[in-house]
Amino acid sequence: MTRVLILGGGGMVGQKLATKLEAEGLPGLGDLHLTLHDIAFPNGGAGTDRRVGNLANPAEVAALAAERFDLIFFLASIVSGEAEIDFDKGWQTNLWPMWGFLEGLRAQHRATGGIYVPRLIFTSSIAVFGGPYPDKIDDDFLQSPQTSYGAQKAACELLVQDFSRKGFIDGMSLRLPTICVRPGKANMAASSFFSGIIREPLAGQRAVLPVADTVRHWHASPRAAAGFLAHAATLDTARLEGRRALNLPGLSCTVAEQIEALRDAAGNEAVALIDPQPDPHIARIVEGWPRNFAPERAKALGFVAEQSFDEIVAIYMEEDMPKG
Amino acid sequence: MTRVLILGGGGMVGQKLATKLEAEGLPGLGDLHLTLHDIAFPNGGAGTDRRVGNLANPAEVAALAAERFDLIFFLASIVSGEAEIDFDKGWQTNLWPMWGFLEGLRAQHRATGGIYVPRLIFTSSIAVFGGPYPDKIDDDFLQSPQTSYGAQKAACELLVQDFSRKGFIDGMSLRLPTICVRPGKANMAASSFFSGIIREPLAGQRAVLPVADTVRHWHASPRAAAGFLAHAATLDTARLEGRRALNLPGLSCTVAEQIEALRDAAGNEAVALIDPQPDPHIARIVEGWPRNFAPERAKALGFVAEQSFDEIVAIYMEEDMPKG
Repeated sequence: MTRVLILGGGGMVGQKLATKLEAEGLPGLGDLHLTLHDIAFPNGGAGTDRRVGNLANPAEVAALAAERFDLIFFLASIVSGEAEIDFDKGWQTNLWPMWGFLEGLRAQHRATGGIYVPRLIFTSSIAVFGGPYPDKIDDDFLQSPQTSYGAQKAACELLVQDFSRKGFIDGMSLRLPTICVRPGKANMAASSFFSGIIREPLAGQRAVLPVADTVRHWHASPRAAAGFLAHAATLDTARLEGRRALNLPGLSCTVAEQIEALRDAAGNEAVALIDPQPDPHIARIVEGWPRNFAPERAKALGFVAEQSFDEIVAIYMEEDMPKG
Repeated sequence: MTRVLILGGGGMVGQKLATKLEAEGLPGLGDLHLTLHDIAFPNGGAGTDRRVGNLANPAEVAALAAERFDLIFFLASIVSGEAEIDFDKGWQTNLWPMWGFLEGLRAQHRATGGIYVPRLIFTSSIAVFGGPYPDKIDDDFLQSPQTSYGAQKAACELLVQDFSRKGFIDGMSLRLPTICVRPGKANMAASSFFSGIIREPLAGQRAVLPVADTVRHWHASPRAAAGFLAHAATLDTARLEGRRALNLPGLSCTVAEQIEALRDAAGNEAVALIDPQPDPHIARIVEGWPRNFAPERAKALGFVAEQSFDEIVAIYMEEDMPKG
């Protein structure tokens, strides 16, 4: 049996991943026992071994590390908008628990004479990048985050890299595209509207568009995100050749192209529910975000995302949209 | 009067910088009051306001920050070899004091209603990079450190970047080339031999060369290092356009070319004092280091280094070599 921990297991991607693992398992890992940790969980959903807690508590972080899980998905984080508004909370939530947890894993590594080396998959973000950008960001492009969230993710990547290089863990950081279409409610992520302008109209509700429709961005579906994480769980990390942070595949499209995909799926009446309301705070953050990538390493390693925004809308309608 | 703090002011570069500032001042900053902080100081040398202490003590770090220096040079660090051998000490020394100090500066920023925004110059390193490398590393190349020292420096850069972006400080990270020829004794830096093979033979002593003479590396003199720091102190940071870590100019040459410069300066008898003794530990670290750069941004910003290794040897003989 393989013991799996999902930190942030109550969140949207955590639940999507847990559902996938419950249904499909992971190649070569036998039966999985899933433990999900988060500050809150949805009613229903995936996961039977659910732990409600807070990684801001160092003792709790150490106790989790001491359970010696075989495979850990580290998804816990506050989102970009909140980290930008609350500087203290951003660093306290998005960096220090990672340090404490890795130190806890290292203590177990030592206690087992070096035998315990868990696989750890960290959900980083394309927010580690900052402009000016080339047309397509390649795998050698510098990290120069222009948000606190991006800086915190980049700092965690460095920790995952160094603890892995020393052999304490076998870690990997996945720089997720913006996940779209997110089910549920809008959140404080500055990227929230990318989902809102599809999700709300499909539910017959109005949606605010805070940026120009010429904004180009980099997307992947929740299904693709769960697929990335599952794929990373059993990847031969020797193939990473010491660079343990990966730009993932995604789909580059403009907001206008997103809107056309909505029109194809639900007609003009859905599109008419989108209200352009420029928001300088959101626009300034999004302006600094990547628009397109050439993620050759990740593709060669077998990571796969969607080919069109129509496909992303279809996945939402099939898998995540509340059935009315 | 401008109040200047040099953290790590007892070290070689700190002393070189203090000497330069005492002699030349800084353009536009009027009289300078220099405060030097370090765990130890040389007898004699620069600095009259010397504070002996340890940045591992958080209370001391906070107290230093509370003095509201106008200009801070953050040079304090343990070297690469030591950080690689002692994982705990590396992170505790090379990352956490930076966090504590920046938090202290932010507290002063708040306490002054946002008026206090000190200039902070951090000595980062080309160890933030990891191979495989292009022939010349350009200003857009990713950080992928292959040593703990490099990871710690890269993490500090992220902090300096984010605290600056938020306006709490006005910071900059300078990725120094390997400083060569270092006066004094060999240290635990894996790069120590680059200086040793020049310095020791010039003093009539034997020197160990732990790597092949085909190794190419990136150098600048102590004089250039002090010049970089002084230049950064009064640079218009708006010109950094949000990317506050800079690759600096330097000189790319092989160990064989270093040895030829030694031969030019001191003859075959000096070269004969070099003992090739391959050291796999050193060789493995150095193999992962950058060999050459195209530091266009720093050049455009007016940073200047040496043009030949002959020049570097001459600077050592003129400025740093003990007079016999």
